Amino acid sequence: MPRFSKAVSSLRSSEIRDLMTLASRPDIISFAGGMPGNDLFPVEEVEELYRKLESKHKQAAFQYGPTPGLPSLLESLAGFLETKGLPVKENRLLITTGSQQGLNLLAKAFIDPGEPVLVENPCFIGALSAFRSYEAELRGVPVDRDGINIEALRHETERPEKAKFLYITPYFHNPAGVLYTTERKRELIETLQGTDIPLIEDDAYGDLSFFEEDRERLKPIKAINPPGIEVCYTGSFSKILGPGLRLGWMLVPEEIYQKCELIKQSADACSPSFTQVLADQFIRSGQIYSYVTRVREEYKRRAAAMVAALREHLPSYVEWNEPRGGFYIWLTLPEGADATKIMMLALEKGAVFVVGKTFDPAGKRNNSLRLSYCNNTPQEIAEGIPIVAHAIRQVCG
Amino acid sequence: MPRFSKAVSSLRSSEIRDLMTLASRPDIISFAGGMPGNDLFPVEEVEELYRKLESKHKQAAFQYGPTPGLPSLLESLAGFLETKGLPVKENRLLITTGSQQGLNLLAKAFIDPGEPVLVENPCFIGALSAFRSYEAELRGVPVDRDGINIEALRHETERPEKAKFLYITPYFHNPAGVLYTTERKRELIETLQGTDIPLIEDDAYGDLSFFEEDRERLKPIKAINPPGIEVCYTGSFSKILGPGLRLGWMLVPEEIYQKCELIKQSADACSPSFTQVLADQFIRSGQIYSYVTRVREEYKRRAAAMVAALREHLPSYVEWNEPRGGFYIWLTLPEGADATKIMMLALEKGAVFVVGKTFDPAGKRNNSLRLSYCNNTPQEIAEGIPIVAHAIRQVCG
Repeated sequence: MPRFSKAVSSLRSSEIRDLMTLASRPDIISFAGGMPGNDLFPVEEVEELYRKLESKHKQAAFQYGPTPGLPSLLESLAGFLETKGLPVKENRLLITTGSQQGLNLLAKAFIDPGEPVLVENPCFIGALSAFRSYEAELRGVPVDRDGINIEALRHETERPEKAKFLYITPYFHNPAGVLYTTERKRELIETLQGTDIPLIEDDAYGDLSFFEEDRERLKPIKAINPPGIEVCYTGSFSKILGPGLRLGWMLVPEEIYQKCELIKQSADACSPSFTQVLADQFIRSGQIYSYVTRVREEYKRRAAAMVAALREHLPSYVEWNEPRGGFYIWLTLPEGADATKIMMLALEKGAVFVVGKTFDPAGKRNNSLRLSYCNNTPQEIAEGIPIVAHAIRQVCG
Repeated sequence: MPRFSKAVSSLRSSEIRDLMTLASRPDIISFAGGMPGNDLFPVEEVEELYRKLESKHKQAAFQYGPTPGLPSLLESLAGFLETKGLPVKENRLLITTGSQQGLNLLAKAFIDPGEPVLVENPCFIGALSAFRSYEAELRGVPVDRDGINIEALRHETERPEKAKFLYITPYFHNPAGVLYTTERKRELIETLQGTDIPLIEDDAYGDLSFFEEDRERLKPIKAINPPGIEVCYTGSFSKILGPGLRLGWMLVPEEIYQKCELIKQSADACSPSFTQVLADQFIRSGQIYSYVTRVREEYKRRAAAMVAALREHLPSYVEWNEPRGGFYIWLTLPEGADATKIMMLALEKGAVFVVGKTFDPAGKRNNSLRLSYCNNTPQEIAEGIPIVAHAIRQVCG
């Protein structure tokens, strides 16, 4: 038996992997994945952009790039982020190998074994996994339909052993689907100010908004730029170009950038130049804007199909949100219900989703489940949701 | 000041970054980089392979893939590795985001803060940086022209606090240029057997061999498959396709694979599907074999140009090796000489290289330097080497 490190000895095999294997079976309707629909990728557009590149730029796509990212992409991405009001000039931008790597670098920058960090409950599983891999103590703070619970957050910030950071996904939360209200963001800012607890603001889904009137709610806290809080803003090309490119970014204060760049050097030296060249062209051609508009409409259509099916088939004791953007609908079942039982039953009939405890920082609470509509046709949704609803009734009555 | 983790507080800014910035200036002849020549990348071949792909495979290039790698690439890469006699079926293969990530995953799997690991002296800087980032105690074992010093290695294996692993780059060593002899490999195997110290065998350059008669010396220890040693074999597409794809691999025993896959999940979820699709096509088309033959000849030509220039210009007190493959020539200067002084002088005249202490696990010993010929025309070599030789004479007499 190899003599593994302590951090790794405690890592357990992930249930989500087995689930994804199931979810890829063609005979099963999967509401499990958080991956964009394959049919939506801008395959031809990107191929055409690459084809037209000068030879020297194609060569550079094969070569190592600087650890923080290709200068041309850093420039074009800065322009893209400035359209969201983000303070690009007063911070530093670092290209990461997916936003997953961004969370991992921040985890390594801040966490010593046993130290507490604050996360939402439920919480994005990739963040939980990154923080667990540095042996953080995960302190969950409940999320309601307006955002994180402020009273619970205040309680956590007042505990004697101070948390190393607070991690949130305020814009079309994964898995809870929530879009924070402007008021809740304001309260969160006030609660954090003066606590010396940095904020990690994960904005992977913010571009996928269904309603023009949500513009103000979508303004990142990083763009509000509140005094007295160090905000580490992370984002991703996964939902607005393609996760297979493995490109994300962080926009962070100088000191935090310096540490993350050093950590990244030893993590993978640099992110793929090849896909950075593609992303750069996608932004510079302006196609990113038209593409985002297109997928936003498509996801809105899929969400509407799922909302209609849920309205028709779900028992009334199930609580859920109508999505205003993003990929997910979160169902809350009666206290004590076991989503795993429901999943097993649904699976037998040919539909699958992710059970609630996957997203619980403590890995326990299971009277909830996540449905994703991003990768399904309205027809699949109309077929799959009755299966889920039936399984819920079988278990919860 | 953010409250950073202990591991990160000790990380220092890398000199190599500033050097690479210098090295990219067009008015400076750089023998510093370990990057392939931009003119050698198979740009047109790869574009043609991609263009001919079916639409569904192009879509898959934009999508998340499984954490261990795309099944099609795992299959084709297994075939490629079997041609080297590697025991693919008795081990597990994991695609990594460059072999740098492979080293980082292994470091995280094995190292707790303060624990000792054995490395060659001099040692590949990417490995030093990965091991340092987990706060390893680096114990250097000298390398001579036949490989690692066995007596020093034996001494290290007998120390009471046992090392977590031994890391070596036996095939065209970076930076020392050494190709281990068959005899030295045999002695190394005997020394490790029964010690319970795993071996990390880094084979990033083995394909770039200049002489057919070295075939036996190039046989990986992993392929010899010695009983009683757990061998973690790492490799890379960086030198045989392009580092900008950020693709490497590890071939490791099942238990180690399981840990590394879990760590990778939280590190970046998966390596880029886009470049995995390209690498897979490059292998399946058979072009990888013809390409390797071509670049091998080209690097041999560049090495010969540097050898000729060094023979003509170097003072006789400088010790160095004639390369049998790979990218590097390592110069050893008289005891006490300071390569940094030499580099400053050479830089003024327009040539740059990497100083020896960069590769010293203790970061001190500096009477040596690394010259790389991989990215220079014979003409640049003929112009640049006299500058280096002159600077050596200025400092060492």
